[in-house]
Amino acid sequence: MTVQSYGDRLTAAVTARGPLCVGIDPHPAILKAWGLSADASGLERFSRTVVEALGDRVAVLKPQSAFFEAYGSTGIAVLERVLDDIRGAGAIALLDVKRGDIGSTMDAYAAAYLTDWSPLAADAITLSPYLGFGSLRGAIDVAAQNGRGVYVLALTSNPEGPQVQHARSADGAMVAQTIIDSAAAVNSGADGLGHVGIVAGATIGRTGADFAGLNGSILAPGLGAQGAGPQDLVDVFGAARTLALPSTSREVLSAGPSIEGLRGAAARTLGEMEAALSVG
Amino acid sequence: MTVQSYGDRLTAAVTARGPLCVGIDPHPAILKAWGLSADASGLERFSRTVVEALGDRVAVLKPQSAFFEAYGSTGIAVLERVLDDIRGAGAIALLDVKRGDIGSTMDAYAAAYLTDWSPLAADAITLSPYLGFGSLRGAIDVAAQNGRGVYVLALTSNPEGPQVQHARSADGAMVAQTIIDSAAAVNSGADGLGHVGIVAGATIGRTGADFAGLNGSILAPGLGAQGAGPQDLVDVFGAARTLALPSTSREVLSAGPSIEGLRGAAARTLGEMEAALSVG
Repeated sequence: MTVQSYGDRLTAAVTARGPLCVGIDPHPAILKAWGLSADASGLERFSRTVVEALGDRVAVLKPQSAFFEAYGSTGIAVLERVLDDIRGAGAIALLDVKRGDIGSTMDAYAAAYLTDWSPLAADAITLSPYLGFGSLRGAIDVAAQNGRGVYVLALTSNPEGPQVQHARSADGAMVAQTIIDSAAAVNSGADGLGHVGIVAGATIGRTGADFAGLNGSILAPGLGAQGAGPQDLVDVFGAARTLALPSTSREVLSAGPSIEGLRGAAARTLGEMEAALSVG
Repeated sequence: MTVQSYGDRLTAAVTARGPLCVGIDPHPAILKAWGLSADASGLERFSRTVVEALGDRVAVLKPQSAFFEAYGSTGIAVLERVLDDIRGAGAIALLDVKRGDIGSTMDAYAAAYLTDWSPLAADAITLSPYLGFGSLRGAIDVAAQNGRGVYVLALTSNPEGPQVQHARSADGAMVAQTIIDSAAAVNSGADGLGHVGIVAGATIGRTGADFAGLNGSILAPGLGAQGAGPQDLVDVFGAARTLALPSTSREVLSAGPSIEGLRGAAARTLGEMEAALSVG
């Protein structure tokens, strides 16, 4: 059986539903704002409400693993059900775990998150490349075999990021650029959009990074009402802005717990994103 | 109540038991070699056997989270019991999770692994600094408040590591050096050994990295019969080699499942490590 590639699945989802990723970030403050308890039951109620509201209409839902890990195995059991819900609703489940390791350890992360038989199987995960892009290869290969994707951290908007991401290798290339180029090299053979995405904040400004050859999805937090506007997108991504998958969380989640509130906020945010992406 | 610092706890453990960290790495191949099934029950049998054999005699036991995550919430429930066992046996539980994120997400990781009330509470965890050392500050502060520690990835021995770790910032400093210096800055106010350790492979050779001011523990995989010898330690760490906490896994685990086999291998390995660390 031929497995449909992550690039094709993502392209289909974005074509049908528009380019928007909504984060499922059940931090204690939002649980309180929704009138929920800061425990596994509040966690479950929150997460499944988001999926009920948005799972049939946004392209990608992105649970943040840390907020589930905070409740131990009980929280992880909730995460398993949330991932199931997302798949059942027809959205792409992008699990934000930022894992990165080597050898058999990296293989174990791939088994945990990128294989069909795992209780924590996601459609894609985020990866962190401090050990070098090549150390992630085991997960990248397993993802490809299973029609899944990865998003490797490249350029983030937090003020501490440049310490590592803007450093330069002996040949003068910025670390973040070498990550982008490594991802591009994997994607270059793809028929359609490749399965190795990168994470790059929409508010990072002009860094000199070149995304032109990536041929992969760019998970881009920070776009929207309280962040970057259309011109920022042009500045940061240039022509590659068509690859951007805008990611938002607070703007949508703060409109809950009402289902209609969440849907309205997601629709408004999607409209803003589409306007931003279509400029120029 | 005054909380005993991680530095003091580690120093006491190493003084009493010698400088050795044994990894609990239940990958499928070792489960098979021990005659165990590659499932949550094999995982539990394996891990608790290691703790039964070594928990009352080695300073630090280091479970690798990836191998537990691979079995979903059931695996994480096993990890909770293993962490409990390690604490009960009197060893330091260093959970290898290599987490790294920003803001409220980093706070959630700190809550998950570095607070007394969490089911996954460890004495220390590993952190990954691709988002910059400063992004980890939330976890570093929570660790200090709770008498716990962190080990931040600096220089690893895998061939892909230098792509990021040897890159240089605008002032010419190697990324890994800026991580070491950032850790040293936190530790500089400590009374005794500070609570921010780093991870640096014993086989990385001369990189020019300077560990002299760290005043923190150096988790050093790769020392021993099949890896680095005494001279490598001098080359890599210089005078700071007294801060090294040698970490081993395969050499000890391959001597199981017999309790006496594991104890004999740990004792032999500890002897080799002490000999290596005392040179020069």
